Amino acid sequence: MEQNGNITAAVLVIGDEILSGRTQDQNTSYIARYLGEIGVELREARVVPDVTEEIVAAVDALRRRYTYVLTTGGIGPTHDDITADAIAAAFGVEIDEDPRAVAMLLERIKPEDLNAARRRMARIPKGAELIENVISKAPGFMIGNVIVMAGVPIIMQAMLDAAAGRLARGAKVLVATVDADSLPEGRYAADLSKIAEAHEKVTIGSYPSFSSAGVRNQIVLRSRDADELERAAGAVRSLIARLSANGTPI
Amino acid sequence: MEQNGNITAAVLVIGDEILSGRTQDQNTSYIARYLGEIGVELREARVVPDVTEEIVAAVDALRRRYTYVLTTGGIGPTHDDITADAIAAAFGVEIDEDPRAVAMLLERIKPEDLNAARRRMARIPKGAELIENVISKAPGFMIGNVIVMAGVPIIMQAMLDAAAGRLARGAKVLVATVDADSLPEGRYAADLSKIAEAHEKVTIGSYPSFSSAGVRNQIVLRSRDADELERAAGAVRSLIARLSANGTPI
Repeated sequence: MEQNGNITAAVLVIGDEILSGRTQDQNTSYIARYLGEIGVELREARVVPDVTEEIVAAVDALRRRYTYVLTTGGIGPTHDDITADAIAAAFGVEIDEDPRAVAMLLERIKPEDLNAARRRMARIPKGAELIENVISKAPGFMIGNVIVMAGVPIIMQAMLDAAAGRLARGAKVLVATVDADSLPEGRYAADLSKIAEAHEKVTIGSYPSFSSAGVRNQIVLRSRDADELERAAGAVRSLIARLSANGTPI
Repeated sequence: MEQNGNITAAVLVIGDEILSGRTQDQNTSYIARYLGEIGVELREARVVPDVTEEIVAAVDALRRRYTYVLTTGGIGPTHDDITADAIAAAFGVEIDEDPRAVAMLLERIKPEDLNAARRRMARIPKGAELIENVISKAPGFMIGNVIVMAGVPIIMQAMLDAAAGRLARGAKVLVATVDADSLPEGRYAADLSKIAEAHEKVTIGSYPSFSSAGVRNQIVLRSRDADELERAAGAVRSLIARLSANGTPI
């Protein structure tokens, strides 16, 4: 599950509200940056609806391919929160109320208010380790290589902090960014391609953004090899300095 | 490819910059809302890196399952723009410079500036229809049930406008939202579940959001059946009115 010795991950976003466009997913980019900082490379992300078979199929596909799978969403007290049961099904294990999770809920919920719906948040697949939730107490969990977190961003972020210590860490991908400003991509593309070919250990991307001020291009270089990154970035800087913007806009 | 007679779609976001967290994807939520307006249901989204085999595998999996697949990213002039070639590979068709696409590029690029890199943007898989790009001219395309668009949001949006006329339209999913405000999910979860069970044609979700003002919950009902939606929404409104916030916060 580790590709070329690297530590890899996939994010699985679970929730109708993302697929309807009601809610803008912010968790994937947060997780991407967070994992990058600890040397875990996000290689894929998926969004699936609140449908058990879809969740099971995606978890199964992703957990076999990547070192870790991080899921967000679907672990609250309402009927549409089906993630824990789906994860248990994907692993073929039992799921039941976990006394450790009940104890966590009781830190925030009075015993007389711990009704059946709230107890659902203590349903944890057999064999899972709990992930603490300092915000609202209802825990996430980790089973095998799958980390199950809430969808609400501040809770997800707290759970990621709590889970990060359990993750293997790889060599961090280093990044260099070269501003091409308004220099059109079409001016530097051919030479940039040659630089990319000459530096196999460096991944180079060119990213335009459009605003009322016009097009602005950035070239982003990524590598685990600091020396190779610096050589490639130097070559790109020289290339951009050599060219100057002309009238053709793309 | 149509599930239960509904028109369905998947989004495939192509780009290392999304998986590294450099760029926040905004296209998926835009496409989700846009498709919803024309009765096309977004059922899945995936993000894959700029790697040919990953793009081919995802396109192949998704185009067999859904009525449409909409891709974003990877159709510019630089070496990391490999989407058109990957789509041709997925369909097993040739890819070459398309004279219609060259003509579009020449609306914006002077003939003497139409270098090899810029000509890459005219590479179109055999049998594809072009999708006009009123912003920067380099076209997207549609082949089979796959719609290939740029990653830059304003260009993607223009291409979606240009492509929308070619899509089959289904019955629009109607939405009703009931504010539960600070009423805890755990208070209404059991009764909400019963309402959901009693209205099979209505999908009901409960969505908390956290801010400095505390937790705020919204219940979202979705259905193609206006009468059923109104009945279920009425039941939810009565439920929420009947309950009042107490001290247990989740």
